[in-house]
Amino acid sequence: MIDLAAGIDIGGTNTVFGLVDAQGRIHGSGTIKTSSFKDVEEFVSALYNNISEEALRKGNVRLTGFGIGAPMGNINKGSIEHAAGLPWKGIIHLADIFRKHTALPVIVTNDANAAAIGEMVFGDAKAMTDFIVITLGTGLGSGIVVNGRLVYGHDGFAGELGHTSAGHGFADRECGCGKMGCLETYVSATGLKRTLIHLLADDLQQCSLRNVSFNDLTSEMIYNAATEGDKIAMEAFRLTGNVLGASLADFVAVTSPEAIFLFGGVARAGKMLFDPVRESMEMNLLNIYRGKVKLLPSGLEAGNAAVLGAGSLVWSGNLV
Amino acid sequence: MIDLAAGIDIGGTNTVFGLVDAQGRIHGSGTIKTSSFKDVEEFVSALYNNISEEALRKGNVRLTGFGIGAPMGNINKGSIEHAAGLPWKGIIHLADIFRKHTALPVIVTNDANAAAIGEMVFGDAKAMTDFIVITLGTGLGSGIVVNGRLVYGHDGFAGELGHTSAGHGFADRECGCGKMGCLETYVSATGLKRTLIHLLADDLQQCSLRNVSFNDLTSEMIYNAATEGDKIAMEAFRLTGNVLGASLADFVAVTSPEAIFLFGGVARAGKMLFDPVRESMEMNLLNIYRGKVKLLPSGLEAGNAAVLGAGSLVWSGNLV
Repeated sequence: MIDLAAGIDIGGTNTVFGLVDAQGRIHGSGTIKTSSFKDVEEFVSALYNNISEEALRKGNVRLTGFGIGAPMGNINKGSIEHAAGLPWKGIIHLADIFRKHTALPVIVTNDANAAAIGEMVFGDAKAMTDFIVITLGTGLGSGIVVNGRLVYGHDGFAGELGHTSAGHGFADRECGCGKMGCLETYVSATGLKRTLIHLLADDLQQCSLRNVSFNDLTSEMIYNAATEGDKIAMEAFRLTGNVLGASLADFVAVTSPEAIFLFGGVARAGKMLFDPVRESMEMNLLNIYRGKVKLLPSGLEAGNAAVLGAGSLVWSGNLV
Repeated sequence: MIDLAAGIDIGGTNTVFGLVDAQGRIHGSGTIKTSSFKDVEEFVSALYNNISEEALRKGNVRLTGFGIGAPMGNINKGSIEHAAGLPWKGIIHLADIFRKHTALPVIVTNDANAAAIGEMVFGDAKAMTDFIVITLGTGLGSGIVVNGRLVYGHDGFAGELGHTSAGHGFADRECGCGKMGCLETYVSATGLKRTLIHLLADDLQQCSLRNVSFNDLTSEMIYNAATEGDKIAMEAFRLTGNVLGASLADFVAVTSPEAIFLFGGVARAGKMLFDPVRESMEMNLLNIYRGKVKLLPSGLEAGNAAVLGAGSLVWSGNLV
C-alpha cells in the first residue's frame, strides 16, 4: 500500500493532476479540460472521478488528500475568488465542493504559493527558511516564505508581486487589473511580447518576427529568435531582465531572502534571462544585501512542477 | 521586588534608556550623550553604569535584560553595522561588549523593528499577526510582522523599505545610500523638507518659509506653517502622503497586512499626513486589498515609544 496525494493544477484551459508520493515521485496523472465546464460542481465531480479512477487503476494506493493550485486561490477560505482566466465567476468555494465527495484534507492556494511549498518540500529550498518564488507565465505570480512559513497575510492574498509598480521609467503599460505600470506588464510571457512589439516599432534593425502579428506572437518564438542571434529578440530579454532585476532589489529590501527562484515558461530561457536579472538586481540592491542573494532556477522537474507544487501542499506538514 | 527591562534607544546625538515593566510602564529613565563617546567600550560602560545606578536608586528592582534599538542593529549577531549616524565605524559587536558587564539577555535590533515589537507587546497590534510599522524620522525605517513574527530575513537585515524605489515619477532624488529615488528621499523628515524646498523653487505662492535656509528648515516648521494654512507647506504634506500611499499599496501586495502603523516625528502631523496617505494607498491598491488595510498611528505613548519598543524586546517571549 502506497500513500499518494493528488496534486491538482487548475489552469484556464486545462486542469492537470498527478498522484504524488512523499518523495515527490509521480505515480499516474491525467488532464481534464477546464474550459468545457460551465458549472464548477460538474467540474469537481469529473475531476474527483478521474483522480479516483487513476488511483484505482494503479492499485494498492491510499489517497492522503487533495492539494490544489489555482489562480486567486485562497488558503484561508479554500476558495477561488474572481479568477479572470477561469470559466466560473465570483467567489467559488472550491474546497467545500470537493468535501461533498471526500472527507480527506483539501488544500487550495494560488499556483505561485504551491510552487513555493513545492520548492521547500521536494525542490531546492529544502534547507531554506527565507526565499521567494517568482512564476513567469501569462502573468507574474509569487510565493514568499519567511521564517520557514509561507506568507499569506491577513486575508490569504499576500504575494501579488506582479501588481507592484515596475521600476522608475516603466509606468506606461496598462495592466489587466486596471492599474498602470504593474510589474507583470513588463515581466511575464505577455510582458516579453509587449516589449518585443514595442522594440519593433522603435528600432529599425532586422528581426525575424516582423511578419508575426501581436496575437500570434508567443514567448517561445521570441526565445527561439533570440537563440538564433536575433538582436531585437535578445534585446527584449535583456530589457525584461533589467526590469525584473530592479524590482527584485526592492523585494529583497522587504524580506531579505536567501534565494529567489525563477519558475515557469519564461524562466526556462536560462542565461538569456538570468544574466540581465542578476546584473540589474545587484546594481539596484542596497549595499548591505549585495552579493548575498542567490538567483536560482526551480529545483522541481520542469514538466511536472505545478503538479508537484500542488501535491506538496498535502505533504507539507505545518509549513503551509 | 519588581522585574524591569532596560529599554535603550541609541541615536546619533543621545542615547535614552528607561526601566520598563511587563505592562509597559516606565520606572525611571536617563540619557547619555552618544556623540561624546569616541570609544564604544567606554560608551557601553557609561551606559551600563547609568542603568545600574538608576535601578539601584529605585530600589527593590530586579533587572531582566537589555533591549537595544539602534540604527543598523542586527538581531542575529547582536551588532551594529556601518551605521552612518553613529560615532563608531564598521561592525560593532554591541551585545558582546555588553556581556562583559552582565550575564542577562542582551537583544539588539534596529529601531523600527523595536517599534514593531513594542506595538505587539505594549501597543495597538496586540491581537495582530500581520502588520507593518513605518517609522518617519530623519529617514524611513520599517518593521514587518508576518505570521506573528518579525521578519528578519536570511541575514537579519530585512525591512529596509526606505530604500525601495519611490513610485512612478519620483526618481530624481539622490539618496545617502548611493541610489536614486529611494522612498526615504521623499518620505521622512528630510524628504518633507526637500519637497518643501522644491515647491519654493517651482511655485510662486506666498509661503512663510521663504526666509528659512535649507539647513535651518525642520519638519516641525513645515508642520507649524501648514497648520496656519500656509498653502505650500500643506502641499508638501500632501505630496509626501501621496508618495507614501503609493508605496504602501505595493507593500500591501507583498505581505497583505491587517494594518500599517505610522510612527515617529512626521507621523504626529496626524490628519495632514494620514488623509493623503490613505487616499493614495486606496487608489493604488490592487482591487482585492481595497478597504481592508487599516492605517493607524502608533499605540505607544509618544515621548516614550522608542524606549518602550526597545524594552519590549526583553518582554517579547518568542516573538522576536
